[in-house]
Amino acid sequence: MAFQRETEALAQVAGRLGWDQETVMPRGAAAQRGEEMGAMEAVLHARRTDPRVGEWLAALDDSALDEAGRAQVRLIRRGYTRASKVPGRLAAEIARVTSVAQGVWAEARAQNDVGRFLPTLAEVVRLKREEAAHLAEGRDLYDALLDDYEPGMTGAEVEAMFAALRPRLVALREAVLGSGRRPEPLRGHFDGTEQMRMAAELAGVFGYDWTTGRLDRSVHPFSSGSGTDCRITTRVAEDDPFNCFYSTIHEVGHASYEQGIDRAFLLTPVGQGVSMGVHESQSRIYENQLGRSRAFTGWLHARMRERFGDFGVDGPEAFYATVNRVVPGYIRTEADEVHYNLHILMRFDLERALIRGALDVADLETAWNARFERDFGVPVDMPAHGLLQDVHWSVGLFGYFPTYTLGNLYAGCLHAALRRDIPDLDAALAAGDLRPATGWLRERVQRHGGLRPPRETIARAIGGEPGPEPLLAYLEAKFGELYGL
Amino acid sequence: MAFQRETEALAQVAGRLGWDQETVMPRGAAAQRGEEMGAMEAVLHARRTDPRVGEWLAALDDSALDEAGRAQVRLIRRGYTRASKVPGRLAAEIARVTSVAQGVWAEARAQNDVGRFLPTLAEVVRLKREEAAHLAEGRDLYDALLDDYEPGMTGAEVEAMFAALRPRLVALREAVLGSGRRPEPLRGHFDGTEQMRMAAELAGVFGYDWTTGRLDRSVHPFSSGSGTDCRITTRVAEDDPFNCFYSTIHEVGHASYEQGIDRAFLLTPVGQGVSMGVHESQSRIYENQLGRSRAFTGWLHARMRERFGDFGVDGPEAFYATVNRVVPGYIRTEADEVHYNLHILMRFDLERALIRGALDVADLETAWNARFERDFGVPVDMPAHGLLQDVHWSVGLFGYFPTYTLGNLYAGCLHAALRRDIPDLDAALAAGDLRPATGWLRERVQRHGGLRPPRETIARAIGGEPGPEPLLAYLEAKFGELYGL
Repeated sequence: MAFQRETEALAQVAGRLGWDQETVMPRGAAAQRGEEMGAMEAVLHARRTDPRVGEWLAALDDSALDEAGRAQVRLIRRGYTRASKVPGRLAAEIARVTSVAQGVWAEARAQNDVGRFLPTLAEVVRLKREEAAHLAEGRDLYDALLDDYEPGMTGAEVEAMFAALRPRLVALREAVLGSGRRPEPLRGHFDGTEQMRMAAELAGVFGYDWTTGRLDRSVHPFSSGSGTDCRITTRVAEDDPFNCFYSTIHEVGHASYEQGIDRAFLLTPVGQGVSMGVHESQSRIYENQLGRSRAFTGWLHARMRERFGDFGVDGPEAFYATVNRVVPGYIRTEADEVHYNLHILMRFDLERALIRGALDVADLETAWNARFERDFGVPVDMPAHGLLQDVHWSVGLFGYFPTYTLGNLYAGCLHAALRRDIPDLDAALAAGDLRPATGWLRERVQRHGGLRPPRETIARAIGGEPGPEPLLAYLEAKFGELYGL
Repeated sequence: MAFQRETEALAQVAGRLGWDQETVMPRGAAAQRGEEMGAMEAVLHARRTDPRVGEWLAALDDSALDEAGRAQVRLIRRGYTRASKVPGRLAAEIARVTSVAQGVWAEARAQNDVGRFLPTLAEVVRLKREEAAHLAEGRDLYDALLDDYEPGMTGAEVEAMFAALRPRLVALREAVLGSGRRPEPLRGHFDGTEQMRMAAELAGVFGYDWTTGRLDRSVHPFSSGSGTDCRITTRVAEDDPFNCFYSTIHEVGHASYEQGIDRAFLLTPVGQGVSMGVHESQSRIYENQLGRSRAFTGWLHARMRERFGDFGVDGPEAFYATVNRVVPGYIRTEADEVHYNLHILMRFDLERALIRGALDVADLETAWNARFERDFGVPVDMPAHGLLQDVHWSVGLFGYFPTYTLGNLYAGCLHAALRRDIPDLDAALAAGDLRPATGWLRERVQRHGGLRPPRETIARAIGGEPGPEPLLAYLEAKFGELYGL
């Protein structure tokens, strides 16, 4: 339906406006840009709730449609129902409040002042609970929000999977930190321009299609766009090239998913990644299971020496340990593979309790700090390292955090299946040849886009039900060996 | 009215999509981008013809409004009336045909094949005449199209002004070329990166506001956007730095107009340059009367020597002659100040005859070639140097060409008034200080945006009626002296 296709095209325009804002926009344009974004959102909201879509859906006989056609209808119906359930007044109020809240959060974080942020956060939580009530129609409030990011997934399912992760992750963390091994960090100065050249090379090596993409710098790395215009960004810190390189590989995973979707689905609901969890499975397997593997870091070590000279890490084994060093820390975005999911698990429990009304915003800091100390073994030293560290809640992203660990969990499943299907994968990785791995992911996951629900997408790719065991086995084996456990 | 403001914001988004396409878009994104642009245009057209705007205008009592309020209403009414007069079917057909025609034109030009282009051009002319008939409601067809670019101006008025220009321009051209003087062209290699640094310096010197703008490279230089996001582009040829520098200064003139409009008018119809002619007056006075003046080229010569070393032009006087050398040629976009308007004058006469039905597309090439030989003294050597050289007609821009010379004519008027008001202008220009000049233009022209009709805007700025005499006097004095006439 032409109307729907136009809506998809307009959504791409709105997305590109976001890219522009984070990469090339003149700083004096911020206020005007806010109005432009608001106007685009108003147009999109009006189209998503347009009665003609409802009439079209009601009149539709989808018995004659093929699988792709049924998937399109399912996703259009889902979007229309979702948008129609929330009163326009509430949607506008959430947009307004979260836009202000983000600024309040940024200030509160800069000043390490929780009290400054909590009243605003309480307002955001109130509005998101109200939205959830409209969406849930009597069912679980948190599930209603989680469904925005991971369609079909429930909090109970997430809880069960995360419950299996937590004790073994805590145990692994303690064992690693207690092992006495302390791999060296990377030291020295790495020229920014040369880092960007290496990042571009890495993007190409991981199969990024430059004819439908580009790489720029931004404060926070991201990927943006679907179909034939999928852009990525990275950042450059001259004392920390891994930040630039692994951010690039991560975003290439996201972008490759979008670039890899069957072009027949261009500018349709099926022509986009099916969920945040599946999206993150692609970025994480590119970044971690492939990019931080012993085989690939051997290749990377050699390339970095060619580009940057001798940077003081002695041989590929030491380099592998440096890439994968496990370091205690407060900050999620800086966390290694062992710590990362523990950050997510606590956020999931806390935000679920907030949305279900089991935790009050006034008690959030206490709850955060207690849980952190329990799982990480040290107390939070300051709010900017605690509950003020992430932007998500300030902009109303409740239900988003668990998709990070869900992505890791799916990446673990995909990695196990990939190794099963391509036993000599390491030979290719060691030669810097990612094509066997990315080709497998393209064929099994990426090209299907939104054709099937998220969990089914993964299940078909691996030939079985996804669960936490492959990720745990991978982490325990990798870090057990690295730390001599 | 909030609806109107949203429309203005969406128009800015559509404009920025155009910027993106010409500067940063991945090449594989072209087809998808076509759909995105089409969707934006459909949204904008629907809003511009929305019956609610008509009802609002009909119910409005503007007697209580101030000058700015009345100007807003006048421009909203103008836009609504214009959009409502043309049937949606015809607007869509024009968009479709011109989009294809541009490709046909590009191919025809590449192959020097007029026959390949003429059937398509005939179709474009037919559609534009049909559109003009809807707009003109019995009045002159060409005037109706000209009004899109230069509101309120008629073909007869343009004809009268151009008639005064032509004989003296032809005479000046012949005298210059017959003078025997042949200033040296610029020779050598000028590093592209250093050219872009110099271009950025020039933009700053001419008052470009970097907080609300940026400079990029593109195939054809352009400026884009209004309000607080006004971007410019330039191009780089390593054997021709003047192309880069004067394109930059030209686009800074356009962008400064938009940046300089009173911020109270942001995202309103008044908050944009009032016409193409007035816009071009700003770009031309920046580029020519100021940028190519003896005083300023003296400063530029010194800066270029600092940046590029000795590039073989001996002293500021020789440099001034090199910057302003008059060279016969076929191509409008490469023409010097003496030749440029002669290119426009012939296009105006030809396109006006086409639209009024006095010239058939089948006879266009003959008419073009005859007129060119009459005004330029040499026959056209190939179609790519003749009627195939410009994109304008293929995309339906009939009525646009005369605004270039109108801009030059207005620039001549503004320059005379500027010199009258600031007698020691050359001292500032010789020091690379453009602030007296650009400040005068900001105050007299730019800040008012669309507050008053174009001709009134210029008349108020100069304190009298605009006419061709100041431009002619300027050209005859400048080139008379340069060529010893």
